[in-house]
Amino acid sequence: MTQPTACLLIIGNEVLSGRTQDANLKFLATRLGELGIPLREVRVIPDVRDTIIATVNEVRAKFTYVFTTGGIGPTHDDITAECIAAAFGVPWEPHPEAWARLAAHYARQDPPAEFNAARQRMATMPRGASLIDNPVSIAPGFIIGNVHVMAGVPRIMQAMFDGLAPSLQGGAPVASRAVHANGMLEGRVAEGLGAIQARFPGIDIGSYPYYRPSGNGVALVAKGTDTAQLDAALAQMTALVRELGHEPVAGEPG
Amino acid sequence: MTQPTACLLIIGNEVLSGRTQDANLKFLATRLGELGIPLREVRVIPDVRDTIIATVNEVRAKFTYVFTTGGIGPTHDDITAECIAAAFGVPWEPHPEAWARLAAHYARQDPPAEFNAARQRMATMPRGASLIDNPVSIAPGFIIGNVHVMAGVPRIMQAMFDGLAPSLQGGAPVASRAVHANGMLEGRVAEGLGAIQARFPGIDIGSYPYYRPSGNGVALVAKGTDTAQLDAALAQMTALVRELGHEPVAGEPG
Repeated sequence: MTQPTACLLIIGNEVLSGRTQDANLKFLATRLGELGIPLREVRVIPDVRDTIIATVNEVRAKFTYVFTTGGIGPTHDDITAECIAAAFGVPWEPHPEAWARLAAHYARQDPPAEFNAARQRMATMPRGASLIDNPVSIAPGFIIGNVHVMAGVPRIMQAMFDGLAPSLQGGAPVASRAVHANGMLEGRVAEGLGAIQARFPGIDIGSYPYYRPSGNGVALVAKGTDTAQLDAALAQMTALVRELGHEPVAGEPG
Repeated sequence: MTQPTACLLIIGNEVLSGRTQDANLKFLATRLGELGIPLREVRVIPDVRDTIIATVNEVRAKFTYVFTTGGIGPTHDDITAECIAAAFGVPWEPHPEAWARLAAHYARQDPPAEFNAARQRMATMPRGASLIDNPVSIAPGFIIGNVHVMAGVPRIMQAMFDGLAPSLQGGAPVASRAVHANGMLEGRVAEGLGAIQARFPGIDIGSYPYYRPSGNGVALVAKGTDTAQLDAALAQMTALVRELGHEPVAGEPG
């Protein structure tokens, strides 16, 4: 079976301007890896209609799954849903179930809040979209084709993804093995590590310097779906650290 | 004058796997905005040769400046420099000045460290590259064409960018004005805010909900290069908040 792949589009001027620190990439990268749908590309793009349409059409053809975050609120710059309708060439229109959920939500506020034109935008979706539940603030995300449209606010996005995850068709989960050593230098471990990578072409081996109050060093990390290969690579990485005169410590630095 | 634009490529499996939280995007977005070179797109791509080459060639044609972070260390997965040489169709070869700096650096360690093959990779660059100084750990970044190649470790990247910044040709700096109010809801402010945006097409107005122990609310933010327009938009946003029955507070929530 071919491993499915994922692409994340982070839509929003606020990330590109430096106003907002994105917190969705790391969460989704980790969760998608566990589901066996490794994240292969991320793009951060502005709230610009032509850019969103062109990017969605490019990446939905290239990856098994596309996830988007941001741009589905009630304000003028929340244009993700209408752009995705345009990308799929379908009308952008009221979604009956989303409309009913939001109308009921505003009616049950005390005092009742108006389900005004701005809020109605959040129930306006590409024709044929199916909903992604939003247990935090009601306004749903949606799925059309292989594109999964979620909120940008991290706790809403995370709740949406939790509900969505069981419906995704993953491959083998991406697992990881690590060893680290204080005092080790990348320039000394590089040659031996490259030789280990060459012996295990099916997994990804990386080395990551760290700088901590408790000491500087390097972490060696192997990632992949074949746990037997990962275990074998870990044994060789551990032996390499020892050969270089350092004390190997299992796992990543704390 | 046309405003110059920037694109950032974050190169590295460790960001896509969720191992590492990127800390370079926000720093560069902020600094580039101040320099009048707004960041228009970010891509996070893996350490895969064909992907790096194709992406570099696509974005260097589309944006005034391209910045890359990651993949210039001494290990087997540090392939940024050789891929950029391939993208520009030039040889990847020892850079005399980078070579001299690194050779001297390892020679003056006590005891002297070996300037081995792995470390020599860090002095191997596309022909014609000019160096970006690295005051933290010596191994330089480089510039070729409009592509600026920097380290992935944040404090090294930041030091490289600080040295580089005076040579960048910026436009008018991107400035920002903000007002916020506890208790305000996006769905109520949306219509009035859209009307303000329509009156100021030359600036970007956004609304950002916040959730704090001190209270939930919405921040309204205007960004652009025309400070007179920004001030006028801020006055209208402040009046709108008051009209909706909330107490406007200048700036972003603390």
